[in-house]
This record gives sequence, structure tokens and C-alpha cells, in this order.
Amino acid sequence: MLPNPFLNDLHQAIGPAQVWTEPAVCLVYERDANFLATSTPSVIVSPQTVSQLQAVVQACHQHAMAYTVRGAGTGQSGGAVPTNGGVVISLAQWRTMDLARLAQRTVFAQPGVANGDLKQALAPRGALFAPDPSSQTVCTLGGNWAENAGGIHCIKDGVTADHTLALQLVLPSGQVTTTGTPTVVHPEGTGLALLSLMVGSEGTLGILTGGWVRTIPKPTHTAVTLTAFSTLKQAAAAVAQVLASGITVSALELIDQLTVQCVNRAFGVGFPDQCAAVLLCELVAFSPAELAVQTQVITAVLQAQQPLEHRATDQPQQVEAFWQARRGAAASYGLLTPAFYVLDCVIPPSQLAPALARIAEIAAGHDLVVGNVFHAGDGNLHPHLFFDPHDLPQTERVKQAAKAITALCVSLGGTLSGEHGIGLEKRDSMGLQFTPADLHWMYEVKAIFDPEGLCNPGKILPAKGFCGEANCSHGDSALLPATRPAALSAAGLWI
Amino acid sequence: MLPNPFLNDLHQAIGPAQVWTEPAVCLVYERDANFLATSTPSVIVSPQTVSQLQAVVQACHQHAMAYTVRGAGTGQSGGAVPTNGGVVISLAQWRTMDLARLAQRTVFAQPGVANGDLKQALAPRGALFAPDPSSQTVCTLGGNWAENAGGIHCIKDGVTADHTLALQLVLPSGQVTTTGTPTVVHPEGTGLALLSLMVGSEGTLGILTGGWVRTIPKPTHTAVTLTAFSTLKQAAAAVAQVLASGITVSALELIDQLTVQCVNRAFGVGFPDQCAAVLLCELVAFSPAELAVQTQVITAVLQAQQPLEHRATDQPQQVEAFWQARRGAAASYGLLTPAFYVLDCVIPPSQLAPALARIAEIAAGHDLVVGNVFHAGDGNLHPHLFFDPHDLPQTERVKQAAKAITALCVSLGGTLSGEHGIGLEKRDSMGLQFTPADLHWMYEVKAIFDPEGLCNPGKILPAKGFCGEANCSHGDSALLPATRPAALSAAGLWI
Repeated sequence: MLPNPFLNDLHQAIGPAQVWTEPAVCLVYERDANFLATSTPSVIVSPQTVSQLQAVVQACHQHAMAYTVRGAGTGQSGGAVPTNGGVVISLAQWRTMDLARLAQRTVFAQPGVANGDLKQALAPRGALFAPDPSSQTVCTLGGNWAENAGGIHCIKDGVTADHTLALQLVLPSGQVTTTGTPTVVHPEGTGLALLSLMVGSEGTLGILTGGWVRTIPKPTHTAVTLTAFSTLKQAAAAVAQVLASGITVSALELIDQLTVQCVNRAFGVGFPDQCAAVLLCELVAFSPAELAVQTQVITAVLQAQQPLEHRATDQPQQVEAFWQARRGAAASYGLLTPAFYVLDCVIPPSQLAPALARIAEIAAGHDLVVGNVFHAGDGNLHPHLFFDPHDLPQTERVKQAAKAITALCVSLGGTLSGEHGIGLEKRDSMGLQFTPADLHWMYEVKAIFDPEGLCNPGKILPAKGFCGEANCSHGDSALLPATRPAALSAAGLWI
Repeated sequence: MLPNPFLNDLHQAIGPAQVWTEPAVCLVYERDANFLATSTPSVIVSPQTVSQLQAVVQACHQHAMAYTVRGAGTGQSGGAVPTNGGVVISLAQWRTMDLARLAQRTVFAQPGVANGDLKQALAPRGALFAPDPSSQTVCTLGGNWAENAGGIHCIKDGVTADHTLALQLVLPSGQVTTTGTPTVVHPEGTGLALLSLMVGSEGTLGILTGGWVRTIPKPTHTAVTLTAFSTLKQAAAAVAQVLASGITVSALELIDQLTVQCVNRAFGVGFPDQCAAVLLCELVAFSPAELAVQTQVITAVLQAQQPLEHRATDQPQQVEAFWQARRGAAASYGLLTPAFYVLDCVIPPSQLAPALARIAEIAAGHDLVVGNVFHAGDGNLHPHLFFDPHDLPQTERVKQAAKAITALCVSLGGTLSGEHGIGLEKRDSMGLQFTPADLHWMYEVKAIFDPEGLCNPGKILPAKGFCGEANCSHGDSALLPATRPAALSAAGLWI
């Protein structure tokens, strides 16, 4: 139960109409798009202005209540799920865009603006905000910043951090600040890189209230090649050859056989379904001649891999149909399974073939079906493990297989996450990728911005055993993670 | 004078042959390539291994001696200049490269490897390390990482941070750590961005002992267009049109009339010398056809600006001659002046014409001659102020004009530095770009890695008045900058 004085302060801060404690409302906010992470908040607030938001943060501070910011709730790692009955601050209605500086290739957006809405506003003006998660029609910029979101085009254009020029924040202290410079090309040329620190910090260092993002000229001409291979090994070799060719491809996506069969049934795109994998490769240009030359070169590279089939199209409708099928691939799994668990982990692109082989073995070993559709050029894998949430033993096997696949990727020289973040999902796996030293510095950085540990606690940083020692228990509380592990100094790890 | 026990400990740590206290040796290390920042160290050490380096850091720690790491000493902002008689740690001999993972597009290099030596080792293998400061034949990777170096190609390829996948460090605690992941495409997808924090931190957070950098396929075909304009305004408009065209140019450099005349005399390249400015635009490709198409498009864009003259060449010798002249432009000023002071500041590219007009006025107002040759596409200006170091009043006017130009750039929406860093040179100007809040967090970050303020003190962070208030004097000591400005809390700036 919420302490009454806290509720009174919230009412005082933003008015009772923007505060909800009804269980039915709170239940709506108990999860994001990660099906395993669930925790019911005790109150939902919807501040309308920066000063209302400051007042909410101040009230949380005074009553030592943890808070978590939420936009569209499409995150896959539980980053928007409150811990231990905390407060959810919804910024979903913060949807203002300001395109006044578009001639200088920068626009301002509030965190509740949907990625796709910004894209739509820019398209008629020939401009593009490049990051494009598959959930782009609904996911919001706040989440894109928090998770450093990627998408199919980040092989060419980079991730959200590469397109963020400045951010406005309300810090856990309640203070309003701005970091970065909206109108310069490389905003991190001066001073310590606070902007880079904020992007991808999953809402743990402060609350983003707006930001300036880079726009790039929107390509006027697009072609997609579709190449079908009889083995995954061949498809992986083709990926390596494309990367080595020097040609700047704007997408390089691998779709395995099971997924091809699903998208064919769902979208009728007619991908070759007797192959082990289809590789979609996109090229963009600003003239038909430039596009034609690139298509010719990439076709030669792909044909040299002796595919079963190779086609290329620059017909806009056909191109859009291909990408609609790609973006809808996960949804098409609904033809075969009541639910799936999507993983997000990264390998060196050179490890594609062995990684896919091992993932198939791990899935089989856990008696699970896996579908793969992912950003092959970035080595950013998305194995989808099929399961029925009502089958509890199967659900348990999904969790185990997910952990095994994540550990596999790190052991191959990869990382825990490419674009979905760590959130609640992978915090206990952080020790696989990071040394105790790395984690120590992350705790220290967290502590300078959020010394009381109220700002989206329990995310990213592991609660237990993060120093990798058997008896280690630094940061034991999920609500208030330990911030300065003095025990490490005592243990002689720091001189 | 150095305390004897400290010297004894250094001898103990790395042997007397690697320790120099002779005044003649120390004098060599009193400055880097910034002519205004000078401070003689009291001892030079040259550790040969990581454990020797750890022992040096430990000795400095025990005796509260400040230390500054140095590579080739080509930095332009005084970053490698020790403060208050500190220790210079030379890593110039740490020159090992490891190309074993080149097939995975990553190579390892120690901090003493020259940027150009790495480029040369990679070229026969068709690979490229993209960052290319004009000092590339001598400047070292350690400095490239410390200053987040750029160069003429960063309009296409980005700055050093975009090409750094992992770094090894000896921290001020003496601890050895590694941050980042060598073999993945986007190494900052997981956890807080410690790698981004380290790149560009100018040696203030720890000592880099090696790193893995990204390599990209080296373009096989290159063309350069040379376009001469009768006014700087026209040249600036051409820059804007090239940026808006969507064509990925790999360099977009502006050379003003004075500089054209110097490079013509020095290198005999025959640039049109009756124009206000020459714009050099480079295009790269992996096939002749791709190059031809791009050249055609960019030529149309540039011709539309009604230049005095436009040429294009894809002859390798001619291309190399153009870039040799560009890289040697500053040296060619030697024909006209005994010395020059090079500035490094950034404006929004849209402000190019007004910025150049105001810079000319500022130079004239200080009775100085200015030559401009810079990265126009990035808005990264490099005004060169001519002067005679023996003329002390003129030297004083150079300092004043430099400050005025830097302030102008920030007031136009730009930043203090593009690629040379803050160092000693601009630390007192940090308040122009950053709010007290930004600076506060930078001090906090500095403090968690270097609580005693011994690691390259006096760089980046201002010593005085950084909070912008008349009576503020946080961080007053250059040797030991204040780390936690508690007075700010008392002043009510932080709730």
C-alpha cells in the first residue's frame, strides 16, 4: 500500500486527475513487451510539463519511492517495468515535434513521439531519422534513446546514439539540464562524453524530456536483392563477402527457412521456401544510375556464392512488400505458435555459421522450435523461441535455452545485447560480458547521478554476485542497488 | 626539486636507465604542438611493460605526484604538457601492432603506434583505419584516442570514437582493465557507455595501453573535384548543397585565397589563385562505374553554384598531389610567417559564411593575418593566425583573437573543439559551452576514476569560475582540481 502522505504530495504536485492507483490501471503497467518480467506498480502518474515532472521526482525523492519512466511499453528487456511496487511515470503523451531547424539537419522531439510518426513528418521534406526498430510505428523516441535502439538500417546508418545531438533531462536531483549541441555534426568533440553516457542508459541516470536528433537526406532510390542459399554456411559466407566488398549496403538481413515459410503464408511474398536461408540486401541511392551500379556490383558478389536463386528489384511496391514481410516476420510466427520469446544478442559477423548451428542444437536440446530472422551484417541475432505460456515446464526450458544462447554469443566474442538493452532480463548475465572492474565503474557512474538509487532501479546493473566471486553479494536489493561497493577495496581488488 | 624517496621508488619500479631528471631532457618535454602552453616536468619515465607502468602509477600515487602521458607530442591543445612540474610518462616506444584479427575487421595497436604506420601496414591488405589527422605520419594512436581525433575524412567515416572497439587501460588506482568488445560492430550496445567516456577524455581518466580499432575496406577508386568560387558566400552555399544532396562525399575541404596562394607556391599544384575559395570534394568507390556516377552527380551539384572553375580528376597521382597540398597547407604558411597559431572550433555548417566573415573582422581588428583551411562539411574550422613569437604584443593579440573566435563559434551554435581537444588551451573557456550542471557531472566522473586528481590534472576541466558566477572558485588548484564542488549544493543549485 502506498503511504498516504506520498499520494497527497503527488496530488499536490500534478493534480489528482493525473494520478492513478486503481489496481485495474496499475495492472496495465505491470509489463512491457518482455513476457518474463512482471511487477505491478503502486501508482501511475502522468505529468504534463517539465515542472510537473520535477515535482513528481521531488515527491519520490522525499518519500524514497522508486520510479520508472514509460513510453509505449514496447521494450523487450523489461526496462519499463517498475520494481517492488514503484511509481510509473508515463510520458506517452509528450508528443511534440519541432522541425524548425530541419534545414540544419536537426529536429527536436519529445520522448513520447513515435519513431514512425517522426519518420512520416520528415518524409515529405526529403529527410530521414535513420534508427528504425521493427516496432517503429508505435515505439517512442524516449525508448529509442534509453535502449540505444537499432533496426535493419543500422548497418549503414548506425544506432540511435549516432543520431542524437543533444538531450534534455530531469535528473534524479530534480534539476533540469541539457547535454550535447543540437546543430553540430559531431557533438562529442568537447569535454567528457556525457551525451554518449545518457543514450543507452535505460532510464537509470535521469528522465529524458526531449532531444535533438540528426536527420539525413532520405534516399530517393532503393533496390533490394533476394538471394536464397541451400545451407546456412553459404548464407554466412555471403554475408562476409558483402561486408568485405566495401559496398555500403543499407540492410543485410538473414531469414531462415522456418521464417521464410511463415512470412510466405502470412504475406504471400513468395520467398523461395526450399532453401536454408534467404538473404535480403538493400541498396539506396540518390539517382537511378548510382543505384544500378551498386546493384550490379552486389549481384556479382552474391552470385559468386552460388546461391539457389538471386533476384533484384527496384520497384517501390515490391521493395516495400519485402520489408513489410521482414518487419512482420515475428508476427507471422503466430501461425505456428501461441507465443515466442525473442532474444537479442550479438556475435562477431565472422561467427555467424557456428553460432546458428549451436543455437539450433541448444533449441533442440531443450525440445524447442527456434526461428531466426536478424541483422546479419551487424551480427545482431534474434532467435525466436516458440512456446505456449500455459505450458510451464516448456516456459522454464525457454528461459534456460535463452540463457544458454546468450552465454554462447558472449563466448564467441559477442555481447549480451544489440538493441533491446539489458533491463531486468539480462542484469544477472552482466558478469558474462563485463569484468568486476567494468561493473564497479558503472555502479560509480550510476551513483553520481542517482545516489539514492530511486531512478529506474534494478535495471542494467546486477543485484547479486556481480563481482563473480562465490560469496559476493554486492548490490543485493533490487529496489536500492548498492552503489559504492566498498568491500571491493577491502578485498584488495583496488589499490 | 624532486623528493629523493620518489626518485628512489621510480628507480626501483623501472630501473634508473628509464628515468631522466636532467634539465636538458626535461626541457624537451615542456610543450606539445601548442605553442602557448609550456610547463617543464621534473622527471621523464619510460616504462616498458604494463607492470612497469603500474609500478610508476603506484609510485606517483604514494608520493602524490601528478603524471601526464605523452606519445609523439603532436597535440595542439597542450594535453601532453605536464602541470606544476609533474611526471611525464612516455609511451612513444609502445609500437606493437597485431593484425591477426584483420579478417574480422579489427586490429590491435599500442598507443605509440603512429596513425600513418597503421595505415601503411593495412593498405596492402585492402584495409583502412579511417581517422586521418593531418599529422598522421607522426601522431600516435594514444593521442588519437585521447583527443578523439578527426581529419579530412571524418565527414564520411566519423571520428576516432566511431572506430574504437575496445581499450585497455591502467587506471589511476593502478588497476588494469579493458572496456569494449573487439569483434562486434556496435560495441556500446550493452551497459553504460564506458568506452565512449574514455575516448576523448584526454588522458584524464586513465592511461591507455592499447586498443582494438575497426578497419574498413579501403576504397579502390578515388576522385577529387576542385571548384573555385568568387565569394566565400558562394563556397558556403556549395557546401550546403553538397550536404543536402545525399551523396556520401569522403572529404569536403575549403581553402581560402591566401592559403591557395601559399600551397601553389609550396607545392606547385596550380589551384586557381584569383578566387575567394577553393572547395575540394573527394568521392570514393569500389568500382570505376560507381565512381563515375558519383562524380557526375556531384559535378552537377557544384556547377549549379556557378563557380569560376570546376575540375575533376580520378588520376591517382593528381589526387595524391591535391591531398598532399591540403595536408601541407599549414606548413606552406611558412612562406609568409615565422609562426602561426591554429584554432580548432566548430560551427553548424549552415553558419559557414557569417562565421568566416566575422573571423576576418576579428583578425583585422587585432591587426592579424588569418589563413583558413578546414573541414567545411563538418563545420570544423581551423583559422591560422600568423604572428612572430618574438613580437610579444602581437602574440598577446593572437591570444585575444583566438578567444574571440572561439567565443564566436560557440555563440553561432557551435562547440569549443572539433578534433584538437580542450587540454590546457581552452579549459577556461569551457563555461562558454557547458552549463555548471554539465561541468559538475564531468568533475564527478573525473573524481570516480581519479579521486586524487593526479592523472593529467589541469586538463579539460576549468580551474576557476567554472560555475559562471563572479565569486566562484571551485577547483582552484591546477595540480589537484577540486572534485566534488559541495558548495553548489549549498548554493541551492542541486536539490
